[in-house]
Amino acid sequence: MGTVRALENPIIRPENVRPSREDFEVIGVFNAGVARYEDEVILLLRVAERPKSQREDVVLSPIYDVATNEITVKSFARDDPRNDFSDPRLIVAWARAPLVKGRGQNARAGGMGAPPMNRTHGQDARATYETYLTSISHLRLARSRDGLRFRIEDRPALGPANEYETFGIEDPRIACADGVYYVDYVGVAPLGVTTCLASTRDFQSFQRHGVIFHPDNKDVVLFPARIGDKYYALHRPHSSLFLRNDIWLAESPNLIAWGRHRYLMGTREGWWDETRIGAGAVPFRTDKGWIELYHGADRNSRYCLGAVLLDGEQPGKILARSAQPLFEPEAHYERSGFFGQVVFSCGLLFEDNTLKVYYGAADTSLCYAEIPLADVYQNLGL
Amino acid sequence: MGTVRALENPIIRPENVRPSREDFEVIGVFNAGVARYEDEVILLLRVAERPKSQREDVVLSPIYDVATNEITVKSFARDDPRNDFSDPRLIVAWARAPLVKGRGQNARAGGMGAPPMNRTHGQDARATYETYLTSISHLRLARSRDGLRFRIEDRPALGPANEYETFGIEDPRIACADGVYYVDYVGVAPLGVTTCLASTRDFQSFQRHGVIFHPDNKDVVLFPARIGDKYYALHRPHSSLFLRNDIWLAESPNLIAWGRHRYLMGTREGWWDETRIGAGAVPFRTDKGWIELYHGADRNSRYCLGAVLLDGEQPGKILARSAQPLFEPEAHYERSGFFGQVVFSCGLLFEDNTLKVYYGAADTSLCYAEIPLADVYQNLGL
Repeated sequence: MGTVRALENPIIRPENVRPSREDFEVIGVFNAGVARYEDEVILLLRVAERPKSQREDVVLSPIYDVATNEITVKSFARDDPRNDFSDPRLIVAWARAPLVKGRGQNARAGGMGAPPMNRTHGQDARATYETYLTSISHLRLARSRDGLRFRIEDRPALGPANEYETFGIEDPRIACADGVYYVDYVGVAPLGVTTCLASTRDFQSFQRHGVIFHPDNKDVVLFPARIGDKYYALHRPHSSLFLRNDIWLAESPNLIAWGRHRYLMGTREGWWDETRIGAGAVPFRTDKGWIELYHGADRNSRYCLGAVLLDGEQPGKILARSAQPLFEPEAHYERSGFFGQVVFSCGLLFEDNTLKVYYGAADTSLCYAEIPLADVYQNLGL
Repeated sequence: MGTVRALENPIIRPENVRPSREDFEVIGVFNAGVARYEDEVILLLRVAERPKSQREDVVLSPIYDVATNEITVKSFARDDPRNDFSDPRLIVAWARAPLVKGRGQNARAGGMGAPPMNRTHGQDARATYETYLTSISHLRLARSRDGLRFRIEDRPALGPANEYETFGIEDPRIACADGVYYVDYVGVAPLGVTTCLASTRDFQSFQRHGVIFHPDNKDVVLFPARIGDKYYALHRPHSSLFLRNDIWLAESPNLIAWGRHRYLMGTREGWWDETRIGAGAVPFRTDKGWIELYHGADRNSRYCLGAVLLDGEQPGKILARSAQPLFEPEAHYERSGFFGQVVFSCGLLFEDNTLKVYYGAADTSLCYAEIPLADVYQNLGL
């Protein structure tokens, strides 16, 4: 027993995915939503692409253009010291000189409007920078009978389609409620980081329901059943004034409108989840309550998976939480890649008292592991 | 005709308000929610207080303690260069050495987790700072028959009461729908800046409905009637990754759960509302559509009021917007105070084709002005 990684890992690699355009290359396939549909396992893969023509002198950003319904490519001079390329996923580009005057008695700077958090020393705290991404993600469907060997569709199932998604759509989670598969995913755009909802009954046609969590919010998972007469979700709003990235709980009458937001759990300094946490897989129910597989990062940005047990009737009540990671980056494909030292799950199947976990490794490839429920309980101290 | 300020301005000053505790002083009474109830005008005033015992060597922060249901006072050494007191409303206090390692190939710094936006040069970009407020606000009821001379209650109507409100509650807006008065207000706490909802039928007992907009979100106004079968709200989420402070529209079936968030309008560089905007008074309906009085600030942090006209049936459709401010800080009590050069409204009465505007002046006192609807139309170019 114990946790077992698939020998075939990574089960899906970038080279297994056909780019959506001939002039693009797939640089990552990871963070997949998971569902069992009829006799197959369905994955909605996050596929990250970038232009093939990478150049020494510029860094490129692919951007969806709402007006033309095409992806355009913007370039940024690599040798401009005002641009910041130190995060491989991002471009923080100088946009203009300071707009707001210096601080002091009447600066009213305290509200909102931070300089970019990833500013380097070459940048001016007062100037305005614009953030771009170095790749653009869409969602791609894959199907399998054995859960390991997937047929990957050639075309995106869902791609950027509006002004909330111009930098791509990411990290889908699939919750099946009342016979409908609800897919929530992150929309990234200059308007902010939002969570959007789509639904499908057949994984062929999808209906979009718009933005369900306003900026900035990601790592949203919907509970796959009503509790009492309400739906519930976990979400991860970001407060820049107070530097918080906590997991909150929300209620809904219809999965589209959300309220009664409550703080659920935060980071724990000195622990494995000390700097960043977020809900991962859609929660599942056992006789002890709801189990949520979540991700946490430490000060070295090492992303692990842990679990939290929530009361079956009152999901705002935490019964147990991982003191140690349940699953951590150890295999070579988890330790190195586009963004190394990362395991990150958006979905699992709970079958045969086993967590069948699909997870992104190093923001590069998709992997599979099985974790016995007994091991989760042991990890939770139960 | 034309805009007329009340000769009695400010109609309510800090010295008119009895502190909630003998050892506190009222430093501001401003930003009031407004309703007509029976034969009176009701104001829900934002009252800002601080400990009387101000000292040279420390800066004090009053904080609501959930466990004891009391306000406690925390002090910060004024001569510690790691603390930042440059904004009179805030304390940005050094809390600990850097937790996250330096950036680079694997820093994963791009997500969320900004340094405080109001960091000064004496501070370390990598260290963790905690933000506190120098005053704590509650909501106080005031009543008037003539709309100018108010009887102010001696005790708070609503005060901080839970973990989302430990730094106070601010900026109430009152919308009357279906015979119920809905009060939304900003909750400030280390968990983030949220918008919360309460309701009342009599302005004596209030029912709380929790957090309706998660961190960070403020400047929320509810439309005072269903449009079609939906309720609508304007809100102002903050995106720190993309540095946005835009006004969004949301829909709700019940005023508590909100979804289908849509971007409505942003700041306009070079205009009076170039750096910051937010909804102000609860919108009211005319034969041309919904009129929303909103605030905008320029690069000098001068806060003015403008208007936007939204389609009567489709409130996401902008028909007109102020090119020039409709109302700007000109009187001495608007130009100087705790935070000068500010006019800011949370409520008005639309009666006799006139906007009877209650507004906060310089974050210090409450004032009144009348603006003929014809002037609003003219300002909107109609």
